[in-house]
Amino acid sequence: VRAPVVTFLSDYGVSDDFVGVCHGVIARICPPARIIDLTHGIPRHDVRMGAIALAGALPYLPEGVHLAVVDPDVGASRRAIAVQVADGRRLVGPDNGLLSLAAQAAGGVVAAVDIAQSPLRLEPVSATFHGRDIFAPVAAHLAGGMALEEAGRPLDPDQLVSLTLPEPVFAPSGAVSAEVLYRDTFGNLGLNVTHAHLPASGLRIGRTVTVGRPGAEPLAARFVRTFADGQRGELILYEDAYRRLAVAVSHGDAGQRLGLAPGDGLTLSPA
Amino acid sequence: VRAPVVTFLSDYGVSDDFVGVCHGVIARICPPARIIDLTHGIPRHDVRMGAIALAGALPYLPEGVHLAVVDPDVGASRRAIAVQVADGRRLVGPDNGLLSLAAQAAGGVVAAVDIAQSPLRLEPVSATFHGRDIFAPVAAHLAGGMALEEAGRPLDPDQLVSLTLPEPVFAPSGAVSAEVLYRDTFGNLGLNVTHAHLPASGLRIGRTVTVGRPGAEPLAARFVRTFADGQRGELILYEDAYRRLAVAVSHGDAGQRLGLAPGDGLTLSPA
Amino acid sequence: VRAPVVTFLSDYGVSDDFVGVCHGVIARICPPARIIDLTHGIPRHDVRMGAIALAGALPYLPEGVHLAVVDPDVGASRRAIAVQVADGRRLVGPDNGLLSLAAQAAGGVVAAVDIAQSPLRLEPVSATFHGRDIFAPVAAHLAGGMALEEAGRPLDPDQLVSLTLPEPVFAPSGAVSAEVLYRDTFGNLGLNVTHAHLPASGLRIGRTVTVGRPGAEPLAARFVRTFADGQRGELILYEDAYRRLAVAVSHGDAGQRLGLAPGDGLTLSPA
Repeated sequence: VRAPVVTFLSDYGVSDDFVGVCHGVIARICPPARIIDLTHGIPRHDVRMGAIALAGALPYLPEGVHLAVVDPDVGASRRAIAVQVADGRRLVGPDNGLLSLAAQAAGGVVAAVDIAQSPLRLEPVSATFHGRDIFAPVAAHLAGGMALEEAGRPLDPDQLVSLTLPEPVFAPSGAVSAEVLYRDTFGNLGLNVTHAHLPASGLRIGRTVTVGRPGAEPLAARFVRTFADGQRGELILYEDAYRRLAVAVSHGDAGQRLGLAPGDGLTLSPA
Repeated sequence: VRAPVVTFLSDYGVSDDFVGVCHGVIARICPPARIIDLTHGIPRHDVRMGAIALAGALPYLPEGVHLAVVDPDVGASRRAIAVQVADGRRLVGPDNGLLSLAAQAAGGVVAAVDIAQSPLRLEPVSATFHGRDIFAPVAAHLAGGMALEEAGRPLDPDQLVSLTLPEPVFAPSGAVSAEVLYRDTFGNLGLNVTHAHLPASGLRIGRTVTVGRPGAEPLAARFVRTFADGQRGELILYEDAYRRLAVAVSHGDAGQRLGLAPGDGLTLSPA
Repeated sequence: VRAPVVTFLSDYGVSDDFVGVCHGVIARICPPARIIDLTHGIPRHDVRMGAIALAGALPYLPEGVHLAVVDPDVGASRRAIAVQVADGRRLVGPDNGLLSLAAQAAGGVVAAVDIAQSPLRLEPVSATFHGRDIFAPVAAHLAGGMALEEAGRPLDPDQLVSLTLPEPVFAPSGAVSAEVLYRDTFGNLGLNVTHAHLPASGLRIGRTVTVGRPGAEPLAARFVRTFADGQRGELILYEDAYRRLAVAVSHGDAGQRLGLAPGDGLTLSPA
């Protein structure tokens, strides 16, 4: 028999003991649970980045309980939720859209409960660390076999907060107005342009692309297959491991070179 | 039957392989042990911070062996110890006070051994990495069921090094002279003022507080329940998840704003 | 029966979800596998540093499958390999020398397969994340009991890329021309001079040593046994936990003080 799995994503970082304490809480409640840390490096309060990471990673994770905490409004009036999605996975976290992209990708929410007043909470509940006092305990009890409806009050799935990612805009010229969605530790910039968008654009692998930024000189980049296809220091465009178009500097840092961060716009024009 | 638990706190950081090698050592000696990394982000050599983190986290951790290594005097004459505390937990680490706050909170030390010359050490013992060569092996053998007295030479618990945290000072005006004990990754500053101290102060939730620092303009702060009760950028005072008074900047970094770090003093005056 | 062990070293860092996704992939394929993160803090693309860390740590790790990914040429023509070494361990990673020092230390490679086109890959294979799509799946299947020859095409072990570390040069005066091999998180600098080299040098514990750097004033250091033998701020020389000569500043950062980084040369002269 397999150990139940709890995966865990947050913006807690690895400097403090926030993550370790949540592991402890889960292990006390559900000793056989295996905890997989997906990442704790989501930029502070960046709900959208957390949602994108969770949705992208989910297909690679064992089925289980998926705990996610990026929670700028902890202790305020946002709901705390546990949901079951169509493929059987259960997701636990704040109701601020963090779980929504993963839930959509997994077939949508089939049942939801509000766990803000869950009987499973650790008392006294702090006002600032619901990861420890609400989310981890609920995730652990679900991993241990508890039914979703025992974890909180029923909630209409249609009332949950949902994120939508911005769509790229395609010009007749083949140019694409895009937005930076994320930046990885190497400075590579993931855009809101996917493999499926490419035919609608004039961007083709092997071609040169002009990268335009507001208030700065346009730069030339090459659309390649992988980092090693670029010269050291060359600006490149490639499809990343989640099939999103991304901008990189071969052996360098594109975020720094271009002065772009998540949320910024840029245009990609076939040269 | 439950897997034995080893929790692990250190100042080793996550850039090097120090932590991973200790995991390997534990897994070789006690294969079924489950290792929970509490944190490895204690600031280098900050024994007091490590002691506070361990004591605060312990109630949330499964009972087991609690390994802690913040060891500025590794290889010098400080003792290496393993202790059993009143509630049955065992703690392993250097005898520099790191374990003392946790031991006190868990009812005090009931038995102690000096493990510097333990037969369980890995030979040759390095002069600089006792985490790998002494502490991890002892923790693993204890997790595997070995009795404390087999791990080293008996030691009088009264001889162990003990830390005491500074007490806040209360003025008749209701003002409090406090000290910063820790700073988390978000820049929030934890003080040596606990929930139990508040009645002796003039500080009340919902009220404004003047924060005084040596050689700098006093600043106004509001005593709130949670981050979300503050305006973005507002200086706030709140009870943190360990029921200590803490200073934060809503969506910002209080350590940076106030220019304060652990060990610094400040005064909190009801306005 | 023991759980199979997969150890994991990379330059992925802990900010992104690269490591967590690989854990998920392994856990899906081989649910009982225990994954030990050796480190993910190898400097980006630093194959030699990764090779040194893996070789040094291996004796402290349980026998199992040892996954390592530092892969500047991902998606290009470098081979992807799985090898078995003389002591029974299996290593998985890119064929760029990363595995070579560990393989040598473990008695040499006895069998090797090219896994670039392995039937075990996750499809579609990305051009940039072979950790997820090739290396982790192969490691997981090996941990689950699959034979090496089922993981890829047979490869002549003599054709594998192999690293050699630079040797120190000894002058008749007893001076040593050395090179910095690594720098740990505390700024300590590990050199290419081992315990076995010392008799050929004029360097003796307890003595003063002159540290020469190109284009900078020489500095005096003391050869001590451990950090605590140095005064706060003193430049010291010591044997590190892997029995390599290392340079440190007591309670400080030697890399910063000396302006030296991995790959830089320095001379050590008995004073």
